[in-house]
Amino acid sequence: MEKIKVGVLGATGTVGQRFITLLEDHPYFELTKVAASERSSGKTYEEAVAGRWKVSGDIPEKVKGMTVQEVKPGLDCQVVFSAMDASAAGPIEEEFAGAGYSVFSNARSHRYDPDVPILLPEINAEHAAVIEYQQKSRGWKGFIVTNSNCSTMGLVIPLKPLDLAFGLEAVNVVTLQAVSGAGYPGVSSLDIIDNVIPYISGEEPKMERESLKMLGRLEAGKTFVDASFKISAQCNRVFVLDGHLGCTSVGLRKKPGVEEFTAALADFSGRPQELKLPSAPERPIIVRTEEDRPQPRFDRDHGEGMSVTVGRIRPCNVLDFKLLILSHNTVRGAAGASILNAEFLKAEGYY
Amino acid sequence: MEKIKVGVLGATGTVGQRFITLLEDHPYFELTKVAASERSSGKTYEEAVAGRWKVSGDIPEKVKGMTVQEVKPGLDCQVVFSAMDASAAGPIEEEFAGAGYSVFSNARSHRYDPDVPILLPEINAEHAAVIEYQQKSRGWKGFIVTNSNCSTMGLVIPLKPLDLAFGLEAVNVVTLQAVSGAGYPGVSSLDIIDNVIPYISGEEPKMERESLKMLGRLEAGKTFVDASFKISAQCNRVFVLDGHLGCTSVGLRKKPGVEEFTAALADFSGRPQELKLPSAPERPIIVRTEEDRPQPRFDRDHGEGMSVTVGRIRPCNVLDFKLLILSHNTVRGAAGASILNAEFLKAEGYY
Amino acid sequence: MEKIKVGVLGATGTVGQRFITLLEDHPYFELTKVAASERSSGKTYEEAVAGRWKVSGDIPEKVKGMTVQEVKPGLDCQVVFSAMDASAAGPIEEEFAGAGYSVFSNARSHRYDPDVPILLPEINAEHAAVIEYQQKSRGWKGFIVTNSNCSTMGLVIPLKPLDLAFGLEAVNVVTLQAVSGAGYPGVSSLDIIDNVIPYISGEEPKMERESLKMLGRLEAGKTFVDASFKISAQCNRVFVLDGHLGCTSVGLRKKPGVEEFTAALADFSGRPQELKLPSAPERPIIVRTEEDRPQPRFDRDHGEGMSVTVGRIRPCNVLDFKLLILSHNTVRGAAGASILNAEFLKAEGYY
Amino acid sequence: MEKIKVGVLGATGTVGQRFITLLEDHPYFELTKVAASERSSGKTYEEAVAGRWKVSGDIPEKVKGMTVQEVKPGLDCQVVFSAMDASAAGPIEEEFAGAGYSVFSNARSHRYDPDVPILLPEINAEHAAVIEYQQKSRGWKGFIVTNSNCSTMGLVIPLKPLDLAFGLEAVNVVTLQAVSGAGYPGVSSLDIIDNVIPYISGEEPKMERESLKMLGRLEAGKTFVDASFKISAQCNRVFVLDGHLGCTSVGLRKKPGVEEFTAALADFSGRPQELKLPSAPERPIIVRTEEDRPQPRFDRDHGEGMSVTVGRIRPCNVLDFKLLILSHNTVRGAAGASILNAEFLKAEGYY
Repeated sequence: MEKIKVGVLGATGTVGQRFITLLEDHPYFELTKVAASERSSGKTYEEAVAGRWKVSGDIPEKVKGMTVQEVKPGLDCQVVFSAMDASAAGPIEEEFAGAGYSVFSNARSHRYDPDVPILLPEINAEHAAVIEYQQKSRGWKGFIVTNSNCSTMGLVIPLKPLDLAFGLEAVNVVTLQAVSGAGYPGVSSLDIIDNVIPYISGEEPKMERESLKMLGRLEAGKTFVDASFKISAQCNRVFVLDGHLGCTSVGLRKKPGVEEFTAALADFSGRPQELKLPSAPERPIIVRTEEDRPQPRFDRDHGEGMSVTVGRIRPCNVLDFKLLILSHNTVRGAAGASILNAEFLKAEGYY
Repeated sequence: MEKIKVGVLGATGTVGQRFITLLEDHPYFELTKVAASERSSGKTYEEAVAGRWKVSGDIPEKVKGMTVQEVKPGLDCQVVFSAMDASAAGPIEEEFAGAGYSVFSNARSHRYDPDVPILLPEINAEHAAVIEYQQKSRGWKGFIVTNSNCSTMGLVIPLKPLDLAFGLEAVNVVTLQAVSGAGYPGVSSLDIIDNVIPYISGEEPKMERESLKMLGRLEAGKTFVDASFKISAQCNRVFVLDGHLGCTSVGLRKKPGVEEFTAALADFSGRPQELKLPSAPERPIIVRTEEDRPQPRFDRDHGEGMSVTVGRIRPCNVLDFKLLILSHNTVRGAAGASILNAEFLKAEGYY
Repeated sequence: MEKIKVGVLGATGTVGQRFITLLEDHPYFELTKVAASERSSGKTYEEAVAGRWKVSGDIPEKVKGMTVQEVKPGLDCQVVFSAMDASAAGPIEEEFAGAGYSVFSNARSHRYDPDVPILLPEINAEHAAVIEYQQKSRGWKGFIVTNSNCSTMGLVIPLKPLDLAFGLEAVNVVTLQAVSGAGYPGVSSLDIIDNVIPYISGEEPKMERESLKMLGRLEAGKTFVDASFKISAQCNRVFVLDGHLGCTSVGLRKKPGVEEFTAALADFSGRPQELKLPSAPERPIIVRTEEDRPQPRFDRDHGEGMSVTVGRIRPCNVLDFKLLILSHNTVRGAAGASILNAEFLKAEGYY
Repeated sequence: MEKIKVGVLGATGTVGQRFITLLEDHPYFELTKVAASERSSGKTYEEAVAGRWKVSGDIPEKVKGMTVQEVKPGLDCQVVFSAMDASAAGPIEEEFAGAGYSVFSNARSHRYDPDVPILLPEINAEHAAVIEYQQKSRGWKGFIVTNSNCSTMGLVIPLKPLDLAFGLEAVNVVTLQAVSGAGYPGVSSLDIIDNVIPYISGEEPKMERESLKMLGRLEAGKTFVDASFKISAQCNRVFVLDGHLGCTSVGLRKKPGVEEFTAALADFSGRPQELKLPSAPERPIIVRTEEDRPQPRFDRDHGEGMSVTVGRIRPCNVLDFKLLILSHNTVRGAAGASILNAEFLKAEGYY
């Protein structure tokens, strides 16, 4: 099969870098274009990221010499992955969608648009159906699909099977989030050394709002109806490089035992697994049984960073169960999720 | 006034070291004896802690040359502060109490004894009355008073005024605890670098159980009745030197507004403040209004480490309010709390 | 004695903040003016540093409400401490000196001017004499005095008594420098977590060049002649908040034994100690004899951060001796050094 | 080719764990036996390392269920890799060699024996010839070969081509070493947070002594003659997980230019490269030209952790050149080096 040409918008930032490493030798996609802000455009990619390449491994050889393009339609590719800042992403992504590109966005700009899905095919594959409505009502040949904020992603994957099996009533989550989530230069070492920063701008409302949309339903192919459980988030930045940990408690309508609760998580599988998509981990949720796991450094890379690891499942005195949820914030929580969305919509014939 | 002679049991560990620095130039107490396990006894204090002195500042000059005693009655002092390991503390503290010493223990061994208070005079000064019963029923001239686990301490101080004003129904707390809480050598750097350890042995049940006893009531001078709110704790170790942070949500019987809720905390004061005890902070609870405070490195030392700092008070979608609680785990949470108890019982005429 | 009015230029940055805390309750000086760049001027100091106050303790009450001034002459004070960026400091400091102010600069802009001393009164008090020449040749009523780069400061203090006693021939130093030396936001946590940054822009030449000027001599009151020993520096940024450590080896003309070498350091004292200046530590150099000291967290605060701590003195197979040198980079290495210079020149009648 | 059966002695510690991961799917070797101290023997490997498995990735499936053996001859294998503590390794390794095993030791016990090589085939392949003499004089059918201390390893690889090309006269090295070098639990987080530990017991003499033996020559197949350059080491522990960095300066007999100096390093290749041994990196030395590299987190994994990365090559005012040297301390510096030795001696027909 001939590979699909793809571009990365905002290619020089930390999420853009992650796209580039994940797209190296991808079985469906061939990276043909990298685009970034004026400061970088016209330079080679290697020049543009000099001193700012922060993911592990060196820049892929074939990307080093690519000329960084301006971020505007006209790029020779069919799919674009957007790692742009939300401040700029909104209108530019629309422009690309209007020009016929399939836009997979990591920015928050369009997440709350009523005709744009926050797609995560393990849990809400059926939300993709809104794309037809989006194209028709906006008059676009292309489309925009978003993925959620990194902290939301890890949370909603295990919430889905719990909701299916037992009915979610309430979710309380306290996150311990990695510094890579803030990009580069991001968190100052003067702020985080011997410290915790118990506040991440905008993060708590994002987690609450996105979870309800993602676990809600799409009515008549065009209207999202939020899920109805109660959800509260508290977000902290801790001194960890990669991997967001969520200390979670859930209230349920049905009251399972620990084993039944655990089995619902361990046995979960979704459309990406059925379709055997290249970026789909064999198991979307891995359950650890040690008393002190998951831990960011030891568990973030399971399933090439695409599995979510849960553990310490135990009864809760306030809600029904407590559990830990760990996910890799720049892979499953960002670039990897976007690429999985692109694989999924390709497999489903959306482009 | 002549100073009261005091000794420290388990003087060479990290909590013992903190006792020693806090007792330097104390207005009521004079440190006359340091005692520790066989490995150390007979050495000078300086020799015994060589390479293991881990609190800031050097060893006080007058303590350096003290000979480390065996841990058994016969020490020339009236009060003993116990910083012993729980594995050994139980029977030894009883022996001291039986021999007439006033024992202020930081160990968990007697915390759950029905005739031993977990005393924190800002919140349960009236629990001290059990001492008479303890002495009578055990036939002791001395007594044992404990303080809570470090993580419980920070939590229960703000819970008290909330309970008084609004009636606590439920408490959910997720802690981010400092490595100093695990003593020395304690947490391995190989475990905590670029990581979070989401488990602390025994900590969650301690927080839950101790909170209910401390905020419960003493009936007829001899029976503790637990408080009746629901409480759930999740405990994490993070890469911070000192200062435990609790991401807390509370459910209340009465539903105050944010201002009323905040005022209940900010205005709180207790018996130690009335008595102007030397270790009592002017304000037991400090309320910060910045969006990103309290933070361990910047807020742990308020009130010489004896104030608890709260912040980020805001409504919660699951319970009623969310707030952050920060306390210095080895000062307010351990040695400082014990010393405050000794000051308080002295002022109240218990010895 | 009536206090001298002082101002701080560049008052909102991390070095400026340190000036402000060190000037609180200073016996000679009264802080009357704070000045900073356009972005801040006109705001209250508290507003100007909101979210950026990074030294321990809160902003002094009387400074909180001060209006931040523009950085130009006209400030009501006699002395100004400059914590400005080198990019802007040069001409502005000249303007102030021309207008009659005594300017104590922490910037590098004028350090290498032939008529401006890099003053450190413990080691080169006699360099102050160039001020007369500076004023005459430039037609200034005021003057500019600089202090060295933070990493140089710790090094040259112990080098001085070694040079006096044994004659320096060669110095090789490898530094492990704290992140606070880079200011705020400075070093990104993404760069320093689980890492060392083995390069600090401009630092190695600064250490080499400044050391030679500072330990050189002033000829005829107007010409600095560099010292003639060989010096080589390698500078690293490590994950430490405050405190620069220098792993140093020295070659000497005379060959002392370890005891004689140690005594030369331990017995050293300078003019600030004779004059009993308020910021002068009792002992400029503290010698530790433990096998594993000095260490940044445990030794940086000796002498209120103004003492330099040395240790691990031992023979070297390549040069003659190896030793460790630790100093507090933002106190002795920056703001504290400038204030000591101002105290010294006041005591010597220079203004 | 049939695989050679190998065992790991001291298999449960951190170096033992690294052996186990590196031996997974090895083309020459098949791990058949794991042995450890009494505390572990009789348990399955998974039980024995529960809570102590600290390398990345999970325990290889086929090792999990292996029964941990006692550390004594009788193990069904031909080669043993010793990751034992030096306190116990000495006589046990002799026992194994006497019983006919090929012993590849990571312990220091026999490094300084006159008939035991500290082998590193890139630089002193010819030292292997001492084995015949060792076997004859000790009456052994097997033999003992050691590798150097982790910090020495990184240093001597680049020193070799410099010595060959220009003649080494003096080496001064200051190390910044990772915490993994101290094993588990090893370095306490209370010691290393916001700190540097400027002392590692025994490390400096090891680096100096081992370098001279390794870069010396073997005379008449039985006598090692130390190299004659001067060498001085200063060793620090810093807050890095893996990767030792050496800030190095060298004095040379011939005085090359920077380009010639760099080329000698970049072009270096040794016997393992000629033999294309499985663990031999394509390039033993990688030269980086960025101004701020190598850095531990970004460069430690080059060549699967078997390449040494150098950078910042520049003139030195005291000796001739300064450069940075980075190596992976538990791969190239420990288990990987032992395995390479075993591959090399197999290829050379020693067993």
